[in-house]
Amino acid sequence: MRIQSVIRILGLLIFFLGISMFLPLLFAFVQGEEDSFGLFLSFAITILSGLVIFKSAKLKGDIRAKEGFAIVSFGWLLMSIFGTLPFLLTGSIGSFTDAFFETASGFTTTGASILNNLEELPKGVLLWRSQIQWMGGMGIIVLSLAILPILGVGRMQLFKAEVPGPTYDKISPRIGQIAKILWGVYILISGVEIALLKFLGMSLYDAVNHTFTCMATGGFSTKNASIGAYNSVWIDLVITLFMFLAGVNFTLHYRALKGSLLCYFRDKEFLFYLGILGAAGLFITVDTYINNYNGIGEAFQKSIFQSVSIGTTTGYVTADYLNWSSTSQLILFILMFFGGCAGSTGGGMKIVRIMLLIKSSFAELKKSIHPSAIVFVKMGDKSVPNDIIIKILAFFLLYVGIFAVTSIIMTFLGLDIISSIGASAACIGNIGPGLGSVGPVSNYSHIPALGKYILVFCMIVGRLELYTVLVLFSRSFWKV
Amino acid sequence: MRIQSVIRILGLLIFFLGISMFLPLLFAFVQGEEDSFGLFLSFAITILSGLVIFKSAKLKGDIRAKEGFAIVSFGWLLMSIFGTLPFLLTGSIGSFTDAFFETASGFTTTGASILNNLEELPKGVLLWRSQIQWMGGMGIIVLSLAILPILGVGRMQLFKAEVPGPTYDKISPRIGQIAKILWGVYILISGVEIALLKFLGMSLYDAVNHTFTCMATGGFSTKNASIGAYNSVWIDLVITLFMFLAGVNFTLHYRALKGSLLCYFRDKEFLFYLGILGAAGLFITVDTYINNYNGIGEAFQKSIFQSVSIGTTTGYVTADYLNWSSTSQLILFILMFFGGCAGSTGGGMKIVRIMLLIKSSFAELKKSIHPSAIVFVKMGDKSVPNDIIIKILAFFLLYVGIFAVTSIIMTFLGLDIISSIGASAACIGNIGPGLGSVGPVSNYSHIPALGKYILVFCMIVGRLELYTVLVLFSRSFWKV
Repeated sequence: MRIQSVIRILGLLIFFLGISMFLPLLFAFVQGEEDSFGLFLSFAITILSGLVIFKSAKLKGDIRAKEGFAIVSFGWLLMSIFGTLPFLLTGSIGSFTDAFFETASGFTTTGASILNNLEELPKGVLLWRSQIQWMGGMGIIVLSLAILPILGVGRMQLFKAEVPGPTYDKISPRIGQIAKILWGVYILISGVEIALLKFLGMSLYDAVNHTFTCMATGGFSTKNASIGAYNSVWIDLVITLFMFLAGVNFTLHYRALKGSLLCYFRDKEFLFYLGILGAAGLFITVDTYINNYNGIGEAFQKSIFQSVSIGTTTGYVTADYLNWSSTSQLILFILMFFGGCAGSTGGGMKIVRIMLLIKSSFAELKKSIHPSAIVFVKMGDKSVPNDIIIKILAFFLLYVGIFAVTSIIMTFLGLDIISSIGASAACIGNIGPGLGSVGPVSNYSHIPALGKYILVFCMIVGRLELYTVLVLFSRSFWKV
Repeated sequence: MRIQSVIRILGLLIFFLGISMFLPLLFAFVQGEEDSFGLFLSFAITILSGLVIFKSAKLKGDIRAKEGFAIVSFGWLLMSIFGTLPFLLTGSIGSFTDAFFETASGFTTTGASILNNLEELPKGVLLWRSQIQWMGGMGIIVLSLAILPILGVGRMQLFKAEVPGPTYDKISPRIGQIAKILWGVYILISGVEIALLKFLGMSLYDAVNHTFTCMATGGFSTKNASIGAYNSVWIDLVITLFMFLAGVNFTLHYRALKGSLLCYFRDKEFLFYLGILGAAGLFITVDTYINNYNGIGEAFQKSIFQSVSIGTTTGYVTADYLNWSSTSQLILFILMFFGGCAGSTGGGMKIVRIMLLIKSSFAELKKSIHPSAIVFVKMGDKSVPNDIIIKILAFFLLYVGIFAVTSIIMTFLGLDIISSIGASAACIGNIGPGLGSVGPVSNYSHIPALGKYILVFCMIVGRLELYTVLVLFSRSFWKV
């Protein structure tokens, strides 16, 4: 491990994190908010820390896959530590544990919160809270489409398999260039959403905050009642649409913006994603129309919003789905594992993995019937090699394993079974609200400190596609 | 599909099922029980039906894998249909649905029951109920160690990989010979258990019944309070031991009986199985000692019994584990998925699969650190080929998929979430008692008819290693 190089790059990341604190600081200062001083302190400390760390180490040798893993994992961790400063130094959150949970939940675009009353928080701090989700979303797009493929986490192969037509290499092989293109798309769509939400009656402040957390499929809100606070059909529908878009592979958006709108419908992952969310939304519409709401319109509005919110792993709330039937709750719970498309800001296992898992199960059934036949698992018009199938199956297994172990630990810390599996699934999948006592109208403040740290671990492991973090626990990783 | 050949062999199976009804009939007749006539009718109808079906078709051509799948799947189904006769014709169970559920639960060695008061049932019928589990256990041993390998369900490779030393071929490759050897072992161990239970104070009748259901890891009892009715430390311990033995690969028992007692401890699957059940039992002992029981002795007795009972998928009850902590309940729930060793009468996914799943996940982690390294998944001293790993991973996925879909359907039929996932896991894993309203002191009588049929499907699919049944739903299976 070339630790010096890793430290130097981490220093740079912290420096840029500090720079990004200028936005909430400026806002608070202009608005004359009481949190200006705390935000200024955070800004100064983070920039200085970043510079000191950066200067303390020297770049030695190339960055290899190993260093890449360390930079990404510790990067997310350090962002979540320095990102607590605005919460702590303005007195908005009292304990480090809680601030760390909230910040990690932000950077991983999870959206699980420990705050009981959002509306009493200073507006600069709230803006910071939304902004870290937006930055986390940016980070994850670049990570999944540019960095992980180079680290060989199998993303590139996945990506090649899933996007038919122009190949990965054509877009541009270099991280910097890819990042610029995708961030352009991200910022453009964000701009459109801000404009639309403003047009529909949100204040500019709320529109910016919700766009930040929507585009990241993060789900933090500035309102205690989340999106439900606006009680507006149009706002619900627009946010449903943008949550949906945020869960789509950003390469598709890029190609659509270049003029090829049909590219969405040529992409198998997109179609499956649309189909799953559509089917879940429609089923729950009928179910809640029968059991919960008076009109089919209201049932549709709430059901489609909540299905997309959970399915894309955003986690906004317009209805307390714990009052819905057990069937609808269980469907939402299963959607938590599916997540968004690869190359989106969505969490979960990712739709393309679910598709390949289903396809490979069917392939095995076929092989049982025709033992001598050679059966390929295909994605688009390409067949997926065995080693990628194994990698995805192992990913599924690790994911389920971490989910199970975390659930057991949560019960041990005093949560009931439903809340334990809800918290575990919602954190590893980067959703936010879970079931039971961590449901849509509750939050995570009541969980013991140890539980919060374990859930943060789940958020980061889930966000960084498991392997990126888990390899750090291998002794052989640290040698050389 | 050579349907004539399939029908002919199924007729033969039904004929032998009829013959086996002679035991409860003889018992009821000698004891002067009121159910003698109903049992006689069942005996006669089943034998005659078997003969008629047998005579109606001609053996045409060899039995290929296809026919094998059909015979096994429809065999288990027809046994479960004709096996209802003693319940129905003696008036012990009023509806076909309930009788079918009870019988299928027997033949699949699940042990889920719809009977509210066992102790009022005629003794001949109760004996039949236990006996179908014992026969189901016999069937499953031969199926998993002799028939499925020949059908290429990957059992043979599994088996070869897991048992070091003398290979599969040496024991004898022919179904008939293997069956004889393994049934000898099965009957011998059963005899020892009957003698021990009788010695410890059970009536001969109860000893035979409980041995029948213990050796099959079935779990039907003649007492409403299950094994808890005896309130005996020694009976608990002996039954714990024999449940444990029933969950071990019967080839190991055969080799142990041949003199090589150490063979158990050279078998990786056995060691893992011992370790998992031991760890779960000890953890729950401490947990229930703190939260539920007064003495460490009582806590140990109940905890180890219940861990082995659930872990081996037997399902006997000496304590209502729903009163235990959420952690202990969740551990038991996870044990439901692990199940017994391959080649045992236990259900679940089987320990060897769990081991290979864990190993392949670690192998993938290693590959992430050293992308160019060639990493083998080993079992004993042999490396397991990729196509077997994929098959096992796909098995895991299908298992979890069927579990999830069944859970959703159960919520739709009106069960709460916990009961739904409990019923689903307990039936596909052939355990018996689940969680919530299908917990250890409840039963399945309250589930709607449709739900009972779906759970029967789960029991059979789970018992026959998924593929055996699922291939029947493929159109190409039925061609030619």
